[in-house]
Amino acid sequence: MSEYNREADAGQRIMDRCDALAAVSAPSRGVTRLYLTPEHRQAADLLLAWMREAGMEAHLDEVGNVVGRYHSHNGGGPYLILGSHYDSVVDAGKYDGPLGVLTAIDCVARLNANNSRRPYGVEVIAFGDEEGTRFSTALAGSSAVIGSFGVDLLSAVDRDGITLSDALKNYGLSPEDIWRAAHGRETVLGYVELHIEQGPVLQFEDLPVGIVTSIIGQTRAKVTFRGSPNHAGTVPMRLRHDPLLAAAEHALAVERIAIEHQDAVATVGQFQALPGAMNVIPGTVVMSVDVRAASDEVRNKTYHDIVTAAQDIASARGVSVDFEKVIDLRAVPCSEVLTRQLAAACEACGVPVFALPSGAGHDGMAMSKLTDIGMLFVRCKDGKSHTPEEQVDSHDVRVAADVLFTFVENFVQESTSGNHAT
Amino acid sequence: MSEYNREADAGQRIMDRCDALAAVSAPSRGVTRLYLTPEHRQAADLLLAWMREAGMEAHLDEVGNVVGRYHSHNGGGPYLILGSHYDSVVDAGKYDGPLGVLTAIDCVARLNANNSRRPYGVEVIAFGDEEGTRFSTALAGSSAVIGSFGVDLLSAVDRDGITLSDALKNYGLSPEDIWRAAHGRETVLGYVELHIEQGPVLQFEDLPVGIVTSIIGQTRAKVTFRGSPNHAGTVPMRLRHDPLLAAAEHALAVERIAIEHQDAVATVGQFQALPGAMNVIPGTVVMSVDVRAASDEVRNKTYHDIVTAAQDIASARGVSVDFEKVIDLRAVPCSEVLTRQLAAACEACGVPVFALPSGAGHDGMAMSKLTDIGMLFVRCKDGKSHTPEEQVDSHDVRVAADVLFTFVENFVQESTSGNHAT
Repeated sequence: MSEYNREADAGQRIMDRCDALAAVSAPSRGVTRLYLTPEHRQAADLLLAWMREAGMEAHLDEVGNVVGRYHSHNGGGPYLILGSHYDSVVDAGKYDGPLGVLTAIDCVARLNANNSRRPYGVEVIAFGDEEGTRFSTALAGSSAVIGSFGVDLLSAVDRDGITLSDALKNYGLSPEDIWRAAHGRETVLGYVELHIEQGPVLQFEDLPVGIVTSIIGQTRAKVTFRGSPNHAGTVPMRLRHDPLLAAAEHALAVERIAIEHQDAVATVGQFQALPGAMNVIPGTVVMSVDVRAASDEVRNKTYHDIVTAAQDIASARGVSVDFEKVIDLRAVPCSEVLTRQLAAACEACGVPVFALPSGAGHDGMAMSKLTDIGMLFVRCKDGKSHTPEEQVDSHDVRVAADVLFTFVENFVQESTSGNHAT
Repeated sequence: MSEYNREADAGQRIMDRCDALAAVSAPSRGVTRLYLTPEHRQAADLLLAWMREAGMEAHLDEVGNVVGRYHSHNGGGPYLILGSHYDSVVDAGKYDGPLGVLTAIDCVARLNANNSRRPYGVEVIAFGDEEGTRFSTALAGSSAVIGSFGVDLLSAVDRDGITLSDALKNYGLSPEDIWRAAHGRETVLGYVELHIEQGPVLQFEDLPVGIVTSIIGQTRAKVTFRGSPNHAGTVPMRLRHDPLLAAAEHALAVERIAIEHQDAVATVGQFQALPGAMNVIPGTVVMSVDVRAASDEVRNKTYHDIVTAAQDIASARGVSVDFEKVIDLRAVPCSEVLTRQLAAACEACGVPVFALPSGAGHDGMAMSKLTDIGMLFVRCKDGKSHTPEEQVDSHDVRVAADVLFTFVENFVQESTSGNHAT
């Protein structure tokens, strides 16, 4: 009996590889593996070796994605793509990205151990740049795969002034060949990503995994309240026009409005008072508002209500308010076909079927322009991510690995109603 | 008829000197004349010349105060002290400090022009360091005059690492002689300072001047709300423990509580969310609270209610809150005797008597430990100060100069109930 038939061990096996990959990091408190750095390259080599060991033909593509192909019983494609990313933020945890990559490799290893060839190939992609930490270029890896990598990205610079173009060359890649990373639609059957939830919902529901319904849309705005700065000791309360108090009222309005719109979330993550002295009534407050919802209609209505509330609050306090929208992304629905087959895999494994939206962005956002997408979330402790405290349970990982393996083994190509052109 | 008898011109005369003194500044948008800088020294020389021209014996004291004495009809003291400061913040206006100094010099010039000698001398002090901008040593000048300049201040450093001790030496002064700047109690009859209001109350009341009842006490605290940072997209509203929303509620509670306590003001001047990313629910918010009231009892009660409110808010939201008190200064009452004589001077000049507290700190806070203090405020446009937009009206300055002159000419020494030891 091969190692890969001992399915009870899949959880620990994958966890061990997450540990091994996490050790490949720049010196830092957590994992720091930025796009196209030496540690990123070292991780790519490790992934190439593991993919080959799992029976895949593997290569590093022209943008730094690690691509492995486990061929169909015909010896080629088309391919069902599994994957996630292997870059990280600064001081990341071990699982955001790698868990999906290593579970996918393990899944193929199990097929290979069973000498199981399907009518479709299975491709695993470890995307090189999802976080965008180094060059502020999120999803550069999947953008190249879908053939929409913008050449303007090549001039993006990191903190040391190194361009993405030079970083690719230093990595041994040819920027002029990035187009070769693109996949033809006819070669791809779908994209399924396993990822930690990065939120507390599965823990709250006491469930190991959940099926993602959509990657939710988001609107972000910079909101500026302006009054006039003044002395904290000399202006009676009744003569004040304090923009900080308007902004504070507005932060609470943002919360209230999000609660009123079911399934929306809204967050004030930045809040800065200027000039920012203890003894000065602020003249300006700059705050951010981030609104997300699975439904674009709900998101737009929530944002609209937030803008209206700010105007009312500003007017009542005799200050001005200005909104500058900086991000406006539509929701990306997961494919009904893939979602149904993931649910069937859950049932086959005796795992309750639970659907939830993804509040975070993922490579699937780009991949949805090429093919159907589906996602499986794994419970993470206290919903924590992007921190060394990020944690998953090996039992949950075993359940997730079994669901993914069952899904892949039983995958049936169905026609979809989706139109992936954008 | 001497120039100084044309009292209708006092306003413009003093305004012209404010302009002349403002021209002595480091290059900047407004006036920048920091303690013991070359421009500070140049201003001191100008003040010495103007004091001598007004009939005073004048010298630079050991801490950089400019001191002029107009002797009594006996040829000496004791002295009624008038004054204010001649240092500035960065990009200051022309009047905060200089208006009081130049009106005092003008007042003595009028006495001198009339050959008027009183049973008391009049001393004018232009304090060298009230703002404390360069060395973070507010009131260094008046501290030396009252004999409580702490030697530890000598090791304070400016942005360039220059110690106050070295700066004094470079100025031509001997730090070891600072004790000589101290005034004996028996030589002093009181301290009266004319200053711009730095607030909007006189403008609101449509009055040129006001008599200060007290320099109000202040309590400042750094308030820290702590939750745990999390992803803005993945945590449903009902599962959040967002310290920013607690801090926002608290900022509004600070306003409400200040309004509930008559004559108190409370300000949130600093408010910073950490980590401060648009897509992260903040983990920590640090805000400041500044509470002031003319009555220490009201101030302490206001602060107590603010702390209690924060604890209730934090508890309801499942976050923690911590207060760190960084300043706690008692109110300094103005002398009843001087206040009454200032009111009589207003009446004699046909100016409505209006009393108000000073929300800002002044040299009088230090001087009150040596002698009785009184203050006369002059209306300033829109209450603006510490900005090049700081503005006063020459008519108001004429009224203020007349009131001060009338007060000085009619000053009567009365026994006071004050105890100036601290």
